[in-house]
Formats: sequence, C-alpha cells, structure tokens
Amino acid sequence: MHHAIGFIQDFAVIMAIAGVVTVLFHRMRQPVVLGYIAAGVIIEPTPPFNLIHDEATIQTLGEIGVIFLMFSLGLEFSLRKLFRVGATAFVAALSEIVLMIWIGYEIGRWFDWNAMDSLFLGAMLAISSTTIIVKALSELGMKGEHFAQIVFGILIVEDILAIAMLVLLSGIAQTGSVSAGVAVVTLGKLLLFMTVSLIVGILSVPRTLNYVARANSDEMLLVTVLGFCFGFCLLVVKLDYSVALGAFLIGSIMAEARHLARIEHLIAPLRDMFSAIFFVTIGLLLNPKVLVEYAWPIAVITVAVVVGKIVSCGLGTFLAGKDGRTSMSVGMSVSQIGEFSFIIASLGLSLKVTSSFLYPIAVAVSALTTLFTPYLIRAADPITVRLGRAMPAPLANTFGLYSQWLASLTPVSGGPTLFSMTKRIVLQIAMNLALIAAIFLGASYAAPFASTHLARWLETDNTQRVVLWSAALIVALPFLVAVYRKLESLALLLAEVSVQPAKAGRFTRAIRSAISGLIPIVAMFGVFLFVAALSGSILPPFGLMVGVLLCAALLLTVLWRWCVKIHATMQIALRETFEDPREH
Amino acid sequence: MHHAIGFIQDFAVIMAIAGVVTVLFHRMRQPVVLGYIAAGVIIEPTPPFNLIHDEATIQTLGEIGVIFLMFSLGLEFSLRKLFRVGATAFVAALSEIVLMIWIGYEIGRWFDWNAMDSLFLGAMLAISSTTIIVKALSELGMKGEHFAQIVFGILIVEDILAIAMLVLLSGIAQTGSVSAGVAVVTLGKLLLFMTVSLIVGILSVPRTLNYVARANSDEMLLVTVLGFCFGFCLLVVKLDYSVALGAFLIGSIMAEARHLARIEHLIAPLRDMFSAIFFVTIGLLLNPKVLVEYAWPIAVITVAVVVGKIVSCGLGTFLAGKDGRTSMSVGMSVSQIGEFSFIIASLGLSLKVTSSFLYPIAVAVSALTTLFTPYLIRAADPITVRLGRAMPAPLANTFGLYSQWLASLTPVSGGPTLFSMTKRIVLQIAMNLALIAAIFLGASYAAPFASTHLARWLETDNTQRVVLWSAALIVALPFLVAVYRKLESLALLLAEVSVQPAKAGRFTRAIRSAISGLIPIVAMFGVFLFVAALSGSILPPFGLMVGVLLCAALLLTVLWRWCVKIHATMQIALRETFEDPREH
Repeated sequence: MHHAIGFIQDFAVIMAIAGVVTVLFHRMRQPVVLGYIAAGVIIEPTPPFNLIHDEATIQTLGEIGVIFLMFSLGLEFSLRKLFRVGATAFVAALSEIVLMIWIGYEIGRWFDWNAMDSLFLGAMLAISSTTIIVKALSELGMKGEHFAQIVFGILIVEDILAIAMLVLLSGIAQTGSVSAGVAVVTLGKLLLFMTVSLIVGILSVPRTLNYVARANSDEMLLVTVLGFCFGFCLLVVKLDYSVALGAFLIGSIMAEARHLARIEHLIAPLRDMFSAIFFVTIGLLLNPKVLVEYAWPIAVITVAVVVGKIVSCGLGTFLAGKDGRTSMSVGMSVSQIGEFSFIIASLGLSLKVTSSFLYPIAVAVSALTTLFTPYLIRAADPITVRLGRAMPAPLANTFGLYSQWLASLTPVSGGPTLFSMTKRIVLQIAMNLALIAAIFLGASYAAPFASTHLARWLETDNTQRVVLWSAALIVALPFLVAVYRKLESLALLLAEVSVQPAKAGRFTRAIRSAISGLIPIVAMFGVFLFVAALSGSILPPFGLMVGVLLCAALLLTVLWRWCVKIHATMQIALRETFEDPREH
Repeated sequence: MHHAIGFIQDFAVIMAIAGVVTVLFHRMRQPVVLGYIAAGVIIEPTPPFNLIHDEATIQTLGEIGVIFLMFSLGLEFSLRKLFRVGATAFVAALSEIVLMIWIGYEIGRWFDWNAMDSLFLGAMLAISSTTIIVKALSELGMKGEHFAQIVFGILIVEDILAIAMLVLLSGIAQTGSVSAGVAVVTLGKLLLFMTVSLIVGILSVPRTLNYVARANSDEMLLVTVLGFCFGFCLLVVKLDYSVALGAFLIGSIMAEARHLARIEHLIAPLRDMFSAIFFVTIGLLLNPKVLVEYAWPIAVITVAVVVGKIVSCGLGTFLAGKDGRTSMSVGMSVSQIGEFSFIIASLGLSLKVTSSFLYPIAVAVSALTTLFTPYLIRAADPITVRLGRAMPAPLANTFGLYSQWLASLTPVSGGPTLFSMTKRIVLQIAMNLALIAAIFLGASYAAPFASTHLARWLETDNTQRVVLWSAALIVALPFLVAVYRKLESLALLLAEVSVQPAKAGRFTRAIRSAISGLIPIVAMFGVFLFVAALSGSILPPFGLMVGVLLCAALLLTVLWRWCVKIHATMQIALRETFEDPREH
C-alpha cells in the first residue's frame, strides 16, 4: 500500500488546488481551462514545499487526458457532418496552416533565431487547439451552431495535416530536407489507414457495443469501450501515428453505436478528471522566469497568432463559399494554439534541433490565446457588423459578387445528377480499393512472421510466397469482384454519356458496348498492377503467379455469386449502422 | 508523448483483455470480479510476449481503485443506517474476527508453519472483502434488503477493527508482543479521529458541495469531489491510518450532500475503471505454480473460511437478536476474504516476518471464496428452510426461547424514555468532548511548528505555552460551555430520578439541588484533568495556568451567550445537513 502514497499525494494536491482555483475562475467568469493551468503554475514554483513527487506518473496521466479529450470529441463528431463541411474545412485549414507556418518562420528569422527554430515556431503556430475550442464552445453553449460544425471540420482536417506535418518535420530535422515523394507516400498511407480503420471499425465496433450494452451493465460497457479505445490507440501508436488521431478515429467510429448517449455519459467523468490533470501539467511546465525573459517575443507571437488565424482561417472559409458572419466566427474560434504546439515543441527538443526556450514560449502563447478565445468568439458577431459598415463600398461589392458567383456554381439539389452518381461509384471503388490495398499490405507486413512458421512445411521461398499471396488474393476476392462490378456500371455510364447517337450514328451501340466492355478490363489490369506494386515483397515469380491467377479465375466461376453476396451483406451492414436510430 | 506509450500499452492490454473476459464471464453468469482476476492471470504468465511494461504504475492505479471502491461504498452508506445496525454489526464482526484468527492460527500450526506465519494467516482470514460483497450484492440486486444493511454495518466495524489489528500486528511483529495499554490508546485515537472528522466534515463538506453544485457544471463538481476525497485520504495517510478508511469516511460524509445522486453518477465510471485495474492486479500476482504446490493448504483454508465465517458471523448476528433467516444470509454474504487479506499479507512480507507463500495462498483462497460468494448468498434462504426442518426439536426450542427473551429486553418504542434521554445527552457530551480533545491534541501537535514562529516575539518557553494553551482554550470555549450545559441537564435528570420524595422527605429539594449543582462542577474538574493530560506538552506551569483560567472565566462572563449561540448554530447546521432532502 505504501509506495502509492507519493502518487496519492500528487493526485490530492492537484485535485484540491484545481478544485479551489476552478471555483474561483468560474466565479470570475473565466474559462475553467485557464483555472487548471493556473493551478499548475501555483503547484509548480514552490521548491520548499515540494508538492509534486512523481511528476512522470502525473505526465502520463495527463497524456491519458489527451486520449480522453480526443475520444470524446470523436464521439461527438459524426462522419456525415465531416462530409458535409469537408470542402470548406479543407480550404480553410490549408490556408491557415500555410499562412501560419510562413508567419511563424518570418517572426523567428526577425528575432534572429536559427532556421530550424523558426521552422518549428511556424509549425507550432499552424494548428489550433481542439480541446480549448471544444471547451470554449461548450461553455458558451455554441457547440450546435453551424459555424461550430465548420470549426470541428477544420480541426479534424488540421489533425490529419498535422500528423503529416509531424512526419515531414522529423524528416527535415534529421536530414535537412524532405522529398516530395516521401511526403506523398506519407499522406497516402495515412489516408489508406484512416479509410480502412473507418470501414472495418464501423462494421465491427458498434455491433459489439450494441451486444454488450444489451446486458445493461454500465461497468461492462465501460470496460469494453475502454478496451476498444486504448486497443486502437495502441495499434495507431505502433504504426507511428499520434495517439490523438487514434483516439479521435475510434471515437468517431463509436459515435455510430446505438447507445452513444450512455457511452458519452460514462466517459465524461473520466475525460473531466484526466483532462484536468492534463491542463495542470501544462501549468507545471510553465516557468515564470522564462516568461519574463521572453516577454517581447511572446507578445509579438500572441498577436501574430490571433490576427493571423482570424485572417487566414476566416478568409479561407469565405473563399470556400460561406457568408462573412460565419467566416468571422470560424476565424475567431480557431485563433489560439494548444496541445499540438506542445507536441511539436517537444519533438524539436527530443530531436535536439531546437532551442529550449521554444517550449515555454509555446505554453505562454497558448495560455494567452486561450484566455482570449471565449471573448473573441463572443465578439465575432459585433465585429462583423462593424466591419460591414466600415468597409468601403467597392470592396464590399467585390465580396458580394464572389459570393454570388460561388452560389451559381453549386449544383441545384434534386434528383441524382450524373455527377453525383459518378461520384458515388468512384467513392465506392476507392473504398474497395483501400480495403484491397490494406489486405495486401497487411500480408506483406505479416510475411516475415508467417515465413518462420511456414518454413516447417514449405521449403522454398517461392512456395511460401505463392501461399501468402494466394491467401491475400482469396480474402480480397469479394472486394475485387465489387470493384469490377462498380467499374462495369461506371463504364456503362461513361459510354452512355460520351458516345452520342448524333455523332456516332449507327455505330453508337457497337462503340458503347466496346467502351463499356473494355474499360473494366483495362481498369482491372491497372488494379492488378497496383496490387502487385503494393505486395512486391510477397509477389510470386511470373510463372507461378499466372498459375495462381488462373486458379483464382476458376475459383471465381464457382464463387462469383457468393462474393457478390458477401460484399452486399457488408454494404448493407455499413448502411444499417449509419441509419440505426440512437437511444437517448 | 513517447514515454507514456509503455503505459498506454499496459492500459490497453488490461482493458482489452478485461473487456473480453468480462463479457465471457457475464455470459457464463459468473461474477464480473472473477473475470477481472482471470484477465490478470491471463496477462501475467506470458514472459515471451511481455504484455505489461510498467507494473508499478498499474499497481498504483489499482490502489486508486481501492480508494474509489471504498469511497463509493461510503457514498452509499448513511450514518443513520450504521447507528441502526450498530450493535448487531459489532457483535457479529467481533465474534467473526476472534473466531477466524483462532481458526487461522490453528490451521497454520497444523501445517507446521511457524507462529508468526500462523498468526498472520489468522489475521488474513479475519476480515471479509467489502468490495466483493458489495459487487455480489449489487449484481444480485439485493443491496437494499435488510440483511444487506447488517452486512454493510459488519463490514464497517470490521474495517475499524482491521485498522486496529494492523497496528497491533505491526507491534507484535516488531517486538514479539503488544501491551494492552498500547492497544487501548490506538483504538481510542482511532475513535477520536473518526468522531472529529465526521463532525467537522459533515459541518463543512456537504455545504461546499451544495455551493459548487449550484454552478451546474459536472466537471467542477467532479473536481471538487475528487479534491475532497483525495485530500482527506492524504490527511488520513499522514496520520498513519489506511487510505481505505479515509476514502470510506469522506464518502459517508459526502453522502449527506444534497446532490448525492449526481455525485454517485460522476464517480461510478471512475470507480469501475480503477477497480477493474485493481482486480486485474490481483490476478497479475497470482502465480499458478505456487497454487499447485500449495493446493492442499488452499483447499483446507478455503473450507475453513467458508464454514468458519458462516458459523461465526451467522451465530453472532443471531445472538445479537436477528432471526435465523437473516443470520444465515449475513453469514453466507461475508464468507470470503479479499483485499484486506492482501494488505495483511504484504505487511508480513514488508516486515520480513512471514514466508513468501502466504501471499499467493491469500489470493487463491480469495479467488475461490469469491467464486462461491454469489452462490452462497443465493443459497442462504433454501438452506435456512432445510436446516429449520432438519433441526432437532429441543435445539429449535432453545433458539426460539432465546429470540423471545431478547425481544422482551428491547424497550417498547414510543415517547422519549428516561434511558433514551440520558443516552442522547451522554452522546452529545461525548461528541463535544471529542472536539475539545481534538483541539488540544491539535495544539500540542502544532506546538513544535508554532514555537519556531512564536520565538520571534515571545522569548521564554513558558510564555509560548501560555499563548498556545490560551488559544486552544478560546477555540474550545463553545464546546466547553456546551459540555457544562449538557452536564447540568444530565445532573437535573439524575437528581430527579435518584432522589425520591418518599425517601428523602422534606430534604428532597435540597438534596436534588445539591446533586444537580455539584455534578457539573465535579465533572468539569474531570474535564479539566482530561484536557490537561491531553495537552501535557503545552501546559503552562501552575501559577500561569491559574491566571489563564481566571482570564478565561472573566471572558466567559462576557462571551457566555455568544458561546451558547455559536454552539447552537453548529448543532442546527448539523441537524439541517442530515435532514436536507436529497435531489434525485
């Protein structure tokens, strides 16, 4: 019992001080988050009392706090919403990130910091703080508003881009440069991973949760939810992605479970406790001396973050076709930096390429911008009104014309247009290709482990490859069949549109059938090359592969209907999960 | 972010395996607790995979689990219920502990273990597992039944006696014997501590919680509750009591808050998560090899625990006046050992007086008896019926007569009897004396710290003593006045009863007023001696003390009414807290 006392003391000190400060901040109508950070600052600089004994454990619990924060954010986010605000969010997030990296880099150079410090400063300013925005919006009761949905979309796009940025930054820090090829592959792998986990997850996780929830035991449901959450986070970490991404993804998968409301209720206290520890640990890291020393850079960077983010993100949202008021609210919501900046700062420190002052500056700027966030969000509407009045007429007209032009571009909603039908089919093909890619990549990844077991029965390397590759092929068959069938429909559609009787005359039918017959075959050859490229390490030699393919073709004549059925079942299951009504 | 991955992995492994095993155990209709222990066993003996990296942190979290378990037990327990079942619980718990220590010791000697191993085995078998009983009863939906209330009462009395036992065992282990005086002082201090913390806690904690709850923020309420809980646990640990007692006490204090239902809802997920970790850590400690080696002792001890506890606790309950059916249910509920046995076992190990095999035996017996608990509880009623039929008539008659005799002893409830009035006044005097004792003990405890500060202004040791003792006296004044006033009422009551006009004749009035005037003064002199004994280290020399007392008497003539008022306010506040309706 006794070795835990140091830890219990830490926990007691954090909770007691956090409790008092939080109540005080609430009375002063300040965000609770700031109260936690202030509690951390109070706890930290008191060496005579030595309030914290086991800082490593507290830091670990703080990181669990990040997991719970991102997980509940995922629970509150539905994929449908992301698709709805996807384009806007992407434009806004990209313009924000590019502009903020540039501003941060320039500020760094202006202060005569070296190139690497400046680059990391830019990266630190690029990403807004999901946790602080979610907290601020929910404290203001604005989580349900339209602009908030766009903000959440931006935050997710930011998280995805941030992970790519982390990988690229590590590359630059270690080698001094990064090739475009590596960047593309990194992003491609990330997208593939997300797609596959979403599909597999939505097929399996909500069903399991619905089954467990039927037992009516909150404890069992909680343990299962935590098992899924941390199990998936572990997988994500092993694949070298951030644990925050994993927690968010699994949260958005669980958001499709029928008992979402119950899960949210069970997770809320865990999130509140661990996130309190997380914010206190930020305060613990804040050294007042460094703040005084770097007061001037902190002030400049704070102003740059607030102004830069409002302009870049607001403008991005506006350019993507939202009205001025929404754009201003979006810009004002994201005008801060947070946990991701700390991650970037500690990456620089652990790679030993940045100076030690970057971390406290990040925390200080984050604290200051966090302090402003709720006021800025509340000020968005009044400022928009004033700006509208103060704006010179020609500029206002230009903005108006732009909005009108964008509105004229959006297709009139109604029956399924050709475009939407094509989009749907292409999306389905992409999803199936992602699953196929995942299967063959998984087989290649598992090959070294499998070969040690296979070596007992199969002597040559080639036979092992044949077995592995054939196994992957069989698992992938339903999806390959689906891709082929979708390609057929796509080809029919294209043939119908591209070959007009007016031009082709009596050859119309022949050309159309040629096109609709050829396209799937050519495309399937492309798919084969794609698969072969992905599974290079387990690809059998040519002769054997032809044999395997012939066997597969034979198998298909028998299994075709079964493959179609399997795929249809999965598709229906996916749709059902999305359409399953939630209990409240 | 990266040093936490080992811990996240541990957490993920524990939660994922616990989730699966729990669902399996639920399907097999076994208690979930066993599922957790089984998950621990599955995780442990796999050195090639090395599933757990940071076992110390996991153990720490497990101990946090004990805190949350005891805390929620406290939340569910109300002090009024303890008072109602107090006598029964005390008789049953005492007979259980004495008998089980004896049985354990005898079994140990029978296996040729040394005296210390045998004594610790006895202590290990003495205390039942609060957590497992609470879990089993709530899974069976029997938490609200009458026998369950008695069981909870027994568990609390056991916890109090267990803490005394821990202190006594440490003494015996280190010196080979323990004096009766030390035992009495230990128990007295414990009782004083509990009384004072309950009074002070109930006066302050529920009010604060009601205030915080008004803000309608679950997060703030949770952080405040956790601050109180862990803060109090820390205080308790610093006073060398067990953290489990602290968590239980603060829980039962918070049970008087108006928003109890909300607090219970917020704490439940934390309790479930951490207690899952706690039970998994028990499984982690279970080494299958030792179990096989000690299969025979384990079997014997298991049978001894089940039979011994049913007989001792059931008989104790029956002797305290409950019917046979209730007694059987009580006995069957407590027929297992649990977390406290692990604490005793690790105490023996850390003091290096016991052999290493005791710990795995404790875990194995605990696992087996846990397994039986739900079946035994369900079997209690049928067994009682069978026993009733099978019992020889003379024996049954004796039992019947005993019940009737006991029933004839219990006072007929109705208006306030002389006995109940006396009891009430004595209780109030005892409570005030406890507070007075705490104030003077606190002042003595604080004296070394205070004297360093006081030394600046007050040169001699004597003047420091005068200041400290006077300060304690002034703080204690309202309670001293209250004691005096209650003594007056008590004396009046005694005078009325003891001096009958039939005997004393015309002196009745004079004798009565002499008695009622003398008793309080004599008793207050006793109180003074009591206080002087407690505050020996800060007692001023005789001359100065007389001066202080004279000053206090002068002060009293001015402040008498104010003291009465202060005390009345506190008394009303205490009663209001108890009578405050709860929100649901």
